[in-house]
Amino acid sequence: MSQFWSKIVHSLTPYVPGEQPKMGNLIKLNTNENPYPPSPKALVVMQEATDESLRLYPDPNSDSLKQSIADYYHLESEQVFVGNGSDEVLAHTFQALLNHDKPLLFPDISYSFYPVYCGLYNINHKTVPLNARFEIDVNDYIQDNGGIIFPNPNAPTGIGLPLQSIEDLLQQNPSSVVVIDEAYIDFGGESAVALINEYPNLLVVQTISKSRSLAGLRVGFAMGHTDLIQGLVRVKDSFNSYPLDKLATLGASAAMNDKVYFTDTCARIINTRKKLTRQLEALGFDVLPSQANFVFSQHPKHCAEDLAKALRDNSIIVRHFKAPRIENFLRITIGTEEECTQLIQSLDSIISSQ
Amino acid sequence: MSQFWSKIVHSLTPYVPGEQPKMGNLIKLNTNENPYPPSPKALVVMQEATDESLRLYPDPNSDSLKQSIADYYHLESEQVFVGNGSDEVLAHTFQALLNHDKPLLFPDISYSFYPVYCGLYNINHKTVPLNARFEIDVNDYIQDNGGIIFPNPNAPTGIGLPLQSIEDLLQQNPSSVVVIDEAYIDFGGESAVALINEYPNLLVVQTISKSRSLAGLRVGFAMGHTDLIQGLVRVKDSFNSYPLDKLATLGASAAMNDKVYFTDTCARIINTRKKLTRQLEALGFDVLPSQANFVFSQHPKHCAEDLAKALRDNSIIVRHFKAPRIENFLRITIGTEEECTQLIQSLDSIISSQ
Repeated sequence: MSQFWSKIVHSLTPYVPGEQPKMGNLIKLNTNENPYPPSPKALVVMQEATDESLRLYPDPNSDSLKQSIADYYHLESEQVFVGNGSDEVLAHTFQALLNHDKPLLFPDISYSFYPVYCGLYNINHKTVPLNARFEIDVNDYIQDNGGIIFPNPNAPTGIGLPLQSIEDLLQQNPSSVVVIDEAYIDFGGESAVALINEYPNLLVVQTISKSRSLAGLRVGFAMGHTDLIQGLVRVKDSFNSYPLDKLATLGASAAMNDKVYFTDTCARIINTRKKLTRQLEALGFDVLPSQANFVFSQHPKHCAEDLAKALRDNSIIVRHFKAPRIENFLRITIGTEEECTQLIQSLDSIISSQ
Repeated sequence: MSQFWSKIVHSLTPYVPGEQPKMGNLIKLNTNENPYPPSPKALVVMQEATDESLRLYPDPNSDSLKQSIADYYHLESEQVFVGNGSDEVLAHTFQALLNHDKPLLFPDISYSFYPVYCGLYNINHKTVPLNARFEIDVNDYIQDNGGIIFPNPNAPTGIGLPLQSIEDLLQQNPSSVVVIDEAYIDFGGESAVALINEYPNLLVVQTISKSRSLAGLRVGFAMGHTDLIQGLVRVKDSFNSYPLDKLATLGASAAMNDKVYFTDTCARIINTRKKLTRQLEALGFDVLPSQANFVFSQHPKHCAEDLAKALRDNSIIVRHFKAPRIENFLRITIGTEEECTQLIQSLDSIISSQ
């Protein structure tokens, strides 16, 4: 606390990201990173661009990257917004599009950054409980609101919502901006990008941190009607002219263009997820049906927090949230086949000895 | 305008950065980039780090970079904040430390992003006119205020303020945060970092975009009392967990550590500035005394806007601001010796033919 802080600072409860440990030799299954390297083409492009031209400012609009994203999704580049990771894109979205008199709605169990943004921008919000199966029911969002946001697939549950439900939601809420946060969409979900040209109130947010293996680069993007994109641009241009550096712009663009590598690595992760799910179930775990690059799982006889600690003693880190309804769950990122095999062996041994 | 925009978006007047032209073969003296390449050591570090580890999130706190900055300035790393360019650092500063009931003060002629941040965060502000010689007079800031910010050297004038004046200002305003924006300090000014341990209300903001030749990387930083830094961290952690990517963190750190290269390139720019100033004066220009990597200059007989257009026809771009008091000035970035020679030749020929 300081007399010099602006009033808002005193009331903030900052987001706490998953640990990024500085020691090596860990099996790191705690922050949903991709176990496979980035596209080799992206790495080559970045290495070649690391030259004296870095003395110059980058393109403030990252036009080449917007074009790559637009090409990938068959959109116009004016329907694309880019930012310094999807967290920055979401922050601008909360400020530019989700601050209205009526409350913003999001699920009670969801990305825990959402209430933090509401605190930062003083946004009136209300949580809507997931149903008993931890699913989003779009009928629960038929109520007065100033906007709706949730991840699809949801985090940390991994449960996806069919495209038809998203379309129902958009039709039920034509005066509200509906933000679908698709950080994990490429691991088996149906993207709402297909609905952008029909619904001017739809914004889809994605990232290259997960399915494109470039968490270290910090690039996220949003797609929607040009009115929504223009709102985001106005805030971005009032915040930071050049949020994306030259290397990030080029690397992200190359990763978007390398569809073969992307498709292959996503398919490998989906296969590993299926296998891991079966193996966890064989150990007695309940595993929520995941369309993401992680599984959310609980064991009826073992405390999640204890399991996480025991795994850590075996140099395997997973994520545990001390939050109502989910405190007995572990969120486990899909690693390589080998990493998941080691996880299962560790869990087997921990469970047998407890 | 859109029904979906938050209220604040309608009233924004976004900042317009200097042009980043996409055509080559230009002499680009419009956005105060360094004419010399980044430290070769920084480039090597970044090239080597462009590998498969980019699949992982970076250190959310950029500890290694904070330590390099702290080492450079003989501070503790807890006195350092880092962000995605000094524009982001400034944005967080406005939100975290400069939003109070009393008005924020800054000069009438200054970095034109300041009023934009005030619009974004709804900050009450008041401009204080520079004196007739375009200088900041700290006595003009002895008035009720909720904070003070200005660049030193000031932009776009280039005029620096002695350290004693900054200390007077701090003593006159013990209840206000005083932010000294030192984007251009390394080209001849006296940094206020020397006062940080004495004045808990002082925040110094710097960037690696100018004197460290890394505008393409987007890294800025702030230094001050830990209370001020903690206020910034609280806002940053409520906005974006990972604002600096791995390559930017490593490259910036290497650039901070390479003092020999830094000292040499800054000295070259200062020498070129002195020579360019003499040459401009020989052509009849008035040149404000600059401690920055640019000069601010007007010709008593020639209109600045016309001169800028004529230079552009000769493939030389400089910056012209259509703003009261300075509309007949050109802001000219210090280029290489060769670039400045070409500029002088062009101006000579333009002036002779008008």
